[in-house]
Amino acid sequence: MKKKRFAVVLAGCGVYDGAEIQEAVLTMLAIRKQGGSYQCFAPDILQYHVVNHFDGQEMHEKRNVLVESARIARGNIKRLIEFNPEDFDALIFPGGFGAAKNLSTVAFDGANAKVTPEVERAIMEMVSAGKPIGALCIAPAFVAKVLQGVEVTIGDDPGTIAAIEGMGSHHRVTTHGEVVVDNKFKVFTTPCYMLDATLLDIELGAENVVKAMMKELS
Amino acid sequence: MKKKRFAVVLAGCGVYDGAEIQEAVLTMLAIRKQGGSYQCFAPDILQYHVVNHFDGQEMHEKRNVLVESARIARGNIKRLIEFNPEDFDALIFPGGFGAAKNLSTVAFDGANAKVTPEVERAIMEMVSAGKPIGALCIAPAFVAKVLQGVEVTIGDDPGTIAAIEGMGSHHRVTTHGEVVVDNKFKVFTTPCYMLDATLLDIELGAENVVKAMMKELS
Repeated sequence: MKKKRFAVVLAGCGVYDGAEIQEAVLTMLAIRKQGGSYQCFAPDILQYHVVNHFDGQEMHEKRNVLVESARIARGNIKRLIEFNPEDFDALIFPGGFGAAKNLSTVAFDGANAKVTPEVERAIMEMVSAGKPIGALCIAPAFVAKVLQGVEVTIGDDPGTIAAIEGMGSHHRVTTHGEVVVDNKFKVFTTPCYMLDATLLDIELGAENVVKAMMKELS
Repeated sequence: MKKKRFAVVLAGCGVYDGAEIQEAVLTMLAIRKQGGSYQCFAPDILQYHVVNHFDGQEMHEKRNVLVESARIARGNIKRLIEFNPEDFDALIFPGGFGAAKNLSTVAFDGANAKVTPEVERAIMEMVSAGKPIGALCIAPAFVAKVLQGVEVTIGDDPGTIAAIEGMGSHHRVTTHGEVVVDNKFKVFTTPCYMLDATLLDIELGAENVVKAMMKELS
């Protein structure tokens, strides 16, 4: 059987202004462990801002989402604008605030969020091709904006749930390791660090969402 | 039985100028999976330099090792100078060029490398206390500088092997998942990304080195 090819879209490097690093690594590990392959992508745009992860304060710097995401990918990453859905069986978004600040404006605009055009295009093209999309942590919120009416989970955060419902989409409360599957759009979501979590919870969430996507692909 | 407490020392955030992210995350996961707990530490010093991980070029920026390491640790990290060996059962160093550029000068000075004083202190104090030290990838090279005569592995890289032997220490060639144990100093090493590797190899190396340390602690 041919290896299932996943495109992993990163949003920078670090939970407060980029991709959540642990979710990103454990998503890639889950894909490998279940016999798939992956290619990382990120948009070639500036981050919304840069946060000092030691003291939580904003830093007066500019960093690029693609360049910082490349740290997680060890340099093996492509510009999201080059993403071609024909080359992949599945698309997946780890979480972190970067998903809500760089890939979309969910962190600031809630239900009225804008989604970065190349992220929106990637989602729409995968849906048109009938191929599955996965999203962890806060990332389901922008998927809910692009695919109005989809059912997702981000765990149990009331503000984010209200935003998702305000987009005209649906939210189901879940705990660690649970995956919400929307069969119409083929969207697979799990809460990870949107809940209090340890690395064991993140490993479980990443494994289960990739497992559900692999089942869809088998 | 009491949870075994690991101090995980990071060297920044990104393989080319800091800690190797995947090794760091999978080391922390291995500790959790084997019933231990961990606290991250990093020295509060400037990185030797900043590398653009997308194009491999040096960037004209300054970044701090502690602040960037905090990205991997989600902010839950302490200054290495605050490390107290009485609070921990074991000490472990993931790899990445930061180990050879920020925690030591192995990347530039080989056998004549200097080791950052607080790193040297942490190693010496653990040895004095009879507690085990783990090191992945290139990190064994600076352990070999501090603990002359120790036996370690970094895989099979001839230049690094010559540097380790030139320090008066010993090297054993290994492949993925193998752990070299030095019983005199209680030092546990494994090659990880010093060899061509996938995430599965890194998971195996991290699991095996933590497993060997847990056995020593049991």
